[in-house]
Amino acid sequence: MLKGFNAIGFEESKEGNKYLHAFSPVKQTDLPENFAVATTEEVNKAVAKAVAAFGIYKSLPPETKAVFLETIAEEIMQLGDALIERAMQETGLPEARLVGERARTTGQLKLFADLLREGSWVKAVIDEALPERKPLPRSDLRKMLVPIGPVVVFGASNFPFAFSTAGGDTASALASGCSVIVKAHASHLGTNELVATAIINAAKKCDMPDGVFSFVVGEGAVTGMQLVKHPGVKAVGFTGSYYAGMAIYKAAVNERETPIPVYAEMSSINPVLILPQQLSKDTDKIATQLAGSITLGVGQFCTNPGLLFLIDDETSATFIQQLKEKLAALPAGIMLNKNICSSYYKNRKIIAQQNAVSVLHAGDEVADEIKGSTALMQVNTADFISNPQLQNEMFGPASLIIKCKDQTELQQALQSLHGQLTGTIIADTNDMQSFSACIETLTSKVGRLIYYGVPTGVEVCHAMVHGGPFPATTDARSTSVGADAIKRFVRPFCWQDCPQEFLPDALKDANPLNIMRKVNGHYTKDKLSN
Amino acid sequence: MLKGFNAIGFEESKEGNKYLHAFSPVKQTDLPENFAVATTEEVNKAVAKAVAAFGIYKSLPPETKAVFLETIAEEIMQLGDALIERAMQETGLPEARLVGERARTTGQLKLFADLLREGSWVKAVIDEALPERKPLPRSDLRKMLVPIGPVVVFGASNFPFAFSTAGGDTASALASGCSVIVKAHASHLGTNELVATAIINAAKKCDMPDGVFSFVVGEGAVTGMQLVKHPGVKAVGFTGSYYAGMAIYKAAVNERETPIPVYAEMSSINPVLILPQQLSKDTDKIATQLAGSITLGVGQFCTNPGLLFLIDDETSATFIQQLKEKLAALPAGIMLNKNICSSYYKNRKIIAQQNAVSVLHAGDEVADEIKGSTALMQVNTADFISNPQLQNEMFGPASLIIKCKDQTELQQALQSLHGQLTGTIIADTNDMQSFSACIETLTSKVGRLIYYGVPTGVEVCHAMVHGGPFPATTDARSTSVGADAIKRFVRPFCWQDCPQEFLPDALKDANPLNIMRKVNGHYTKDKLSN
Repeated sequence: MLKGFNAIGFEESKEGNKYLHAFSPVKQTDLPENFAVATTEEVNKAVAKAVAAFGIYKSLPPETKAVFLETIAEEIMQLGDALIERAMQETGLPEARLVGERARTTGQLKLFADLLREGSWVKAVIDEALPERKPLPRSDLRKMLVPIGPVVVFGASNFPFAFSTAGGDTASALASGCSVIVKAHASHLGTNELVATAIINAAKKCDMPDGVFSFVVGEGAVTGMQLVKHPGVKAVGFTGSYYAGMAIYKAAVNERETPIPVYAEMSSINPVLILPQQLSKDTDKIATQLAGSITLGVGQFCTNPGLLFLIDDETSATFIQQLKEKLAALPAGIMLNKNICSSYYKNRKIIAQQNAVSVLHAGDEVADEIKGSTALMQVNTADFISNPQLQNEMFGPASLIIKCKDQTELQQALQSLHGQLTGTIIADTNDMQSFSACIETLTSKVGRLIYYGVPTGVEVCHAMVHGGPFPATTDARSTSVGADAIKRFVRPFCWQDCPQEFLPDALKDANPLNIMRKVNGHYTKDKLSN
Repeated sequence: MLKGFNAIGFEESKEGNKYLHAFSPVKQTDLPENFAVATTEEVNKAVAKAVAAFGIYKSLPPETKAVFLETIAEEIMQLGDALIERAMQETGLPEARLVGERARTTGQLKLFADLLREGSWVKAVIDEALPERKPLPRSDLRKMLVPIGPVVVFGASNFPFAFSTAGGDTASALASGCSVIVKAHASHLGTNELVATAIINAAKKCDMPDGVFSFVVGEGAVTGMQLVKHPGVKAVGFTGSYYAGMAIYKAAVNERETPIPVYAEMSSINPVLILPQQLSKDTDKIATQLAGSITLGVGQFCTNPGLLFLIDDETSATFIQQLKEKLAALPAGIMLNKNICSSYYKNRKIIAQQNAVSVLHAGDEVADEIKGSTALMQVNTADFISNPQLQNEMFGPASLIIKCKDQTELQQALQSLHGQLTGTIIADTNDMQSFSACIETLTSKVGRLIYYGVPTGVEVCHAMVHGGPFPATTDARSTSVGADAIKRFVRPFCWQDCPQEFLPDALKDANPLNIMRKVNGHYTKDKLSN
């Protein structure tokens, strides 16, 4: 059933003579299909088609684009169990998780369809002409967000649906009016082909221009870089390692004639502040919640809680013992692929070997079964602060406790933190007040602050921020999840003294789209009365 | 009266033993005052103060910040004629222009004060909790824009008020809640000190934290770079040359542990499409308007029309003759400084010497008087396309005509254009329809499209976009003029399940600021009813 092609727009293309194979962490073996690596010519052709398609696609009515996104969701559902089964084989993720992730993926597409129909996301702003103004009259000025051009998407291994071929980056880029080229993730090539086929079927059904979506197979450092450096490409969405993300980001700035924005989500260890009063009330409950969060998806979440900050006292000693026991009781789980599994044990070992780190628990290394076992380590504040290596992401079911003598030490530890996607505060009102300076510091380091909860679990909604200061992302001004992800692929554009008939609908006097606009400084859906 | 200090917060500091001198292009001589170059320690201290001040300033109520901005405007006006006279000496700009620019500068500060009072600019978004949702409940999620930290501003020589010490970058950064460090422009050091003193007086009057504003004197490549590379600095605003802008941009990405956003406005030659039907109606009027725009401010505007695209016919021949005569009749004007004047003649000569360029008119080179004379050159489409040197900015009262045989040639020429701040279309409705493909191409290259007007003159309002694709700026997603300039210095931040009392006012259920918010996907100023 799988053909192993590259989708150069609507064309199934296999010009090259190199192949990649999908690997099954469940079967611990390569899967049989050959996936043709895209040639340089195929990559260039995909970009050329994306450029041409963008010229048409960007100007299609919002309703047309909304229907396209919804049809992609329908076509994904049409793939049925075959999709779930293939993804299970390729990722080792359990069925229920993948069924849930598929729902999130189709939900994302529908959220953007709704956003397009509502229409106000373009941020229309109108300042009417003031012909009588002295000393000089004012022109009529109108602006809105417009799409920037073809977007390259690097899918993530850990969310084969929600952050991959038809994931958040693709959905938000298509919603913005940009064409998309996906660099297929080598860790789930079959899943990619199935989902891509759904997108292409939807594009054909909806009469989208050929090239609105393409995907290519190949190594990130070769095929991926060719895309990043191509002059036709105008933005990049990436989720993955710090090393790969930075390579893309720097190439986009230094190795192109025209630099382009790169939205790379790279590395986050998601600090959790467990403050004394709340901890003393809910010791066991908090240990249970955190053990669950640390091991969710075998620790392969961007928002996995990798650092736990505790004030050293009797309660925290009890808590640590409970957390250790709960983690030790959990079985090792199948990880996404061999690389991720071996990296996890390697990184875990490096942390364990650092000065002053004590290993409270470390499950057996079962890399030959591609399984990740749990671990819990501990370090004091001074050693944490002096050793940046302790902030390297392990990406697996392990966490490091930082024991702080008091609030002063906690504040110092937090000040030394790198940028993060999330910070979590487990605290009651008294804790919140006593530790307000620490919370302020944590706030400056993260994109989202969670009160008494766990960082894993990212809601797809309007108010989500899934982003954060470097190195969590290359661009803290953005979110990769939620409605505002669309803003990554647009730029503001201003029309001065443009006749009504040549203005986009969003900016016409009559407000035919009935959207919220800012007119002469005031928010309104009213028509302009002139 | 001028002291030649660096402002390290409220401290007037002259620790170093190197000095810069202001130069007067009017008197063609150095001015007497010594301006102390900041030492490394002074620069570090300015950043340390900016970091500390940010911690306080960012959380001050909108009304407090608004009053601060208005007080800066008042203090600038209090400087009276002394400011205008000093700026005239240092820049050679005429009094009326500087009085107008001062009004724009105080107007900008007041626009941001109004924006803060209205309050909706923080883009508050609330998704309420859905505790009953299946399979999983939804948390309460609330987000808004928050300031990113200390901002470094490099003022521009060509707008000593509106784009310098208290200019658009400073005003928008202070409005966003960021502290500011200005690298004083060497071309108007006295003007800088006067305006900076007004800002500092306002900060003291308004009880702002010490360090909310500083300025340092020094070379861009030394003092400026020290600021750009300092870990305490979180963003940079720059207006100036391509060379300096790119040096800052690359340093911010490659030479810092944590890359930061750089908003550099660098180089734009602002193409004007003069289409045949409208031209035949208004030949003389268009020539008059363009001669005025080309020579406005002796051609030293970011939006100076440097490229004129014409369809080769009898009318365009007449137009070229008229434009040439009008330009030739205009006297040479005093330019901002020696460097800008000598660069202008050098760049003009380089363009004139390119293959197939014919010089229709070139005024005498009066570099010894620091005056720029007008010039008009012409080239055919094929040579324009094949020679990227013809897209280098001359930055002076000169323009290059590109003669196109027909629409096909015009389209090809436009496709070869680099990114620009503005594009101008002089056209009637028939022209607009016949040349729609060309207009589409122009749109993809610029940040603002002007219909039958001139590109010079940038309105400070809500709908302005003063920005555009590279190399016009390093970040086409932003504007440096108008209300949305504030968005350059913020990032989105999300609170999950945060108790009401710890939420910022903008996100509280009761909407105490009475701002427009997006609640569960709908725009409203209503309180939340729960």
